[in-house]
Amino acid sequence: MENDKGLLLVLSGPSGVGKGTVCKALREKMPQLVYSVSATTRAPRVGETNGVNYFFKQKSEFLHMIEQDQLLEWAEYVGNYYGTPRKFVEDTLAEGYDVILEIEVQGALQVKEKFPQGIFLFLAPPDLAELESRIVGRGTETEDSIRNRMEMARHEIELMDKYDYVVVNDEIECACEKIQAIITAEHLKKDRQIHKFRKWLAKGV
Amino acid sequence: MENDKGLLLVLSGPSGVGKGTVCKALREKMPQLVYSVSATTRAPRVGETNGVNYFFKQKSEFLHMIEQDQLLEWAEYVGNYYGTPRKFVEDTLAEGYDVILEIEVQGALQVKEKFPQGIFLFLAPPDLAELESRIVGRGTETEDSIRNRMEMARHEIELMDKYDYVVVNDEIECACEKIQAIITAEHLKKDRQIHKFRKWLAKGV
Repeated sequence: MENDKGLLLVLSGPSGVGKGTVCKALREKMPQLVYSVSATTRAPRVGETNGVNYFFKQKSEFLHMIEQDQLLEWAEYVGNYYGTPRKFVEDTLAEGYDVILEIEVQGALQVKEKFPQGIFLFLAPPDLAELESRIVGRGTETEDSIRNRMEMARHEIELMDKYDYVVVNDEIECACEKIQAIITAEHLKKDRQIHKFRKWLAKGV
Repeated sequence: MENDKGLLLVLSGPSGVGKGTVCKALREKMPQLVYSVSATTRAPRVGETNGVNYFFKQKSEFLHMIEQDQLLEWAEYVGNYYGTPRKFVEDTLAEGYDVILEIEVQGALQVKEKFPQGIFLFLAPPDLAELESRIVGRGTETEDSIRNRMEMARHEIELMDKYDYVVVNDEIECACEKIQAIITAEHLKKDRQIHKFRKWLAKGV
């Protein structure tokens, strides 16, 4: 029997929220979850393996991948290119494995345009949720500082709106359990189940 | 701080699938889950309490509830009326509790029309999933028997299409865990989270 197609889980959120830590803890709990390997033009460091840590590319190759729409997202940082190869993700999903992509917000929004069927998960900093109590609290912060925080919070909440799920990263263990529940539930969605029943029904007739 | 609104979980599926057993096991694991109490015109039995086992109603009261659209669904069985009072469900959800409604398929589809924001969960019999192996198996069944099973399966799969999630009831413990994951994930959906952030943001400004 054919494998069920895997899910692309896009784990994202504001910088400093702890995406990397949560992603690592989650992969330890779910060894079957495949980590999306990025392509980059930067030189490999000692101990890094092509196809494991990164797909190492020449700049011309990378530019060719952009042109051919072979990247779900890409960006340039300090003279090097980084991106998510579409083929690795699609091949792994087709084999029936779930893929996790850990990425900052702008990258996630690019992925959403090219791969809207992904599951987009916004990891929210606990201090976003705690902001209210601080604001209505004893006024130890200056008005400017509060205004800045509010502005940042407002921006983050507007980004949150593009995602499917919001998980507050108050405690790693707890955040992992919530993400595992999301993965389980997504696999149980009717549209991901009914085709299996329909398929063998068609075969049996 | 205001409570989050609860979810209405509609647990349904073909007769004999074990809805009652799964619902009971789930309530034992999740005591905070509120069981939707039905209204009925049948007489209370010894030990039954009004408002706990059922809301016991006179026939005229029940007909009035139908007229006033106070029931999310209703049906008549052997001369008695049974239905799901909308008010009990809505009040409990407004208090922030999740409600579980265990109901046969026709009732669930009525609820879906009146309360589409519910989470509709189709409990599928394991023999539906096992049908294929039986059909492609050693041919111990007559062609008529296979045809009947296929017809029933086809009907059940068409009903499945109206639901949000499909859980195969192969093992009660396992089915309960899946349903718990669905409840957790549904609460983490962006639309159920972002309003909380927006609310205090508005307050803080």
